[in-house]
Amino acid sequence: MDALNYPLSSYYDFQTGQIVPRDSYRQIHLSDMRGYYLADRETLHEPLKEDPLLYEVYECQVPAKPGEMVPCSTIIHPGSVGGEFYMTKGHYHSDTNAAEIYCCLRGHGLLLMQHGGQCLVETMKPGALVYVPAGWAHRSVNVGSEDLIIFAIYPADAGHDYGAIREKGFLKRVLRGPDGSPVVHEAS
Amino acid sequence: MDALNYPLSSYYDFQTGQIVPRDSYRQIHLSDMRGYYLADRETLHEPLKEDPLLYEVYECQVPAKPGEMVPCSTIIHPGSVGGEFYMTKGHYHSDTNAAEIYCCLRGHGLLLMQHGGQCLVETMKPGALVYVPAGWAHRSVNVGSEDLIIFAIYPADAGHDYGAIREKGFLKRVLRGPDGSPVVHEAS
Repeated sequence: MDALNYPLSSYYDFQTGQIVPRDSYRQIHLSDMRGYYLADRETLHEPLKEDPLLYEVYECQVPAKPGEMVPCSTIIHPGSVGGEFYMTKGHYHSDTNAAEIYCCLRGHGLLLMQHGGQCLVETMKPGALVYVPAGWAHRSVNVGSEDLIIFAIYPADAGHDYGAIREKGFLKRVLRGPDGSPVVHEAS
Repeated sequence: MDALNYPLSSYYDFQTGQIVPRDSYRQIHLSDMRGYYLADRETLHEPLKEDPLLYEVYECQVPAKPGEMVPCSTIIHPGSVGGEFYMTKGHYHSDTNAAEIYCCLRGHGLLLMQHGGQCLVETMKPGALVYVPAGWAHRSVNVGSEDLIIFAIYPADAGHDYGAIREKGFLKRVLRGPDGSPVVHEAS
């Protein structure tokens, strides 16, 4: 994409998480995340019995150049796979200097952030504003009963590295406890 | 500021525009903007009769390096100076590659954006999401009767150039019309 010559104007629905007009949009179903969930990992080579929609991502498309930033809305639906709450894949940035800003607009979630053997957990409720430092992987988990809506902004030239997480996962997993509330486990 | 070693976590009150804990915070009174308003420009060398608080800015402090971004909340109070609605000073970025993202959380305003002899006006209402391209000066104007609250994000190494606007102003001014509604005038 070439340089932007004119301002982009859109509408962000804080209740649904939709950005209109729709620019870049993708849906992530369970089948897109085979191997990410513990339960799913055990049945990796069996057909899925069902393929629910886990989360949706709206992004404004801007040039992938220094000084440009991507506005991004993520809507994680409520639910769990084998007791593990719906979550995003999570990723590092390819550019290890690229930070990310997270602001929770609706719902109740946890934000996992990981770097150098450390994994921190931050609560996401409306108004939570978290600065994910450069070099930290990040994953959002919906632990509530309604959609979790997060507004995120990252440098347009950050790049995404999903491989490390796909192979090794995060150091923590968020499971539904006996009373339905989230319990953070050390990943085995 | 050195590199960030840990995530920053804060709370953004969407109703008041406050970010707590308070990191960087400043208040801009009329006396800080002498020469910006038409009416004030005419009385530039006279003492001000009153010195109202026009707007407030909360920012999270992060390293001024490529890949870092500043989360920023601006609260512009309702009111006018000689019929000209309360507004921010407005600025260009020193780094002409640096864009800015604006998202209106509350209130009713106008966003002026200017580049190369063009001045565009965008309406700011809750949910308005505007991408200010690199090289475009930007100013927010509160044309409503309550606080205008804007969440903005810009590259931490963007730099601010206030000089060009302070000297020449924007190509448009927003004045209160006979019925109280905003009228956009070409600046003389």
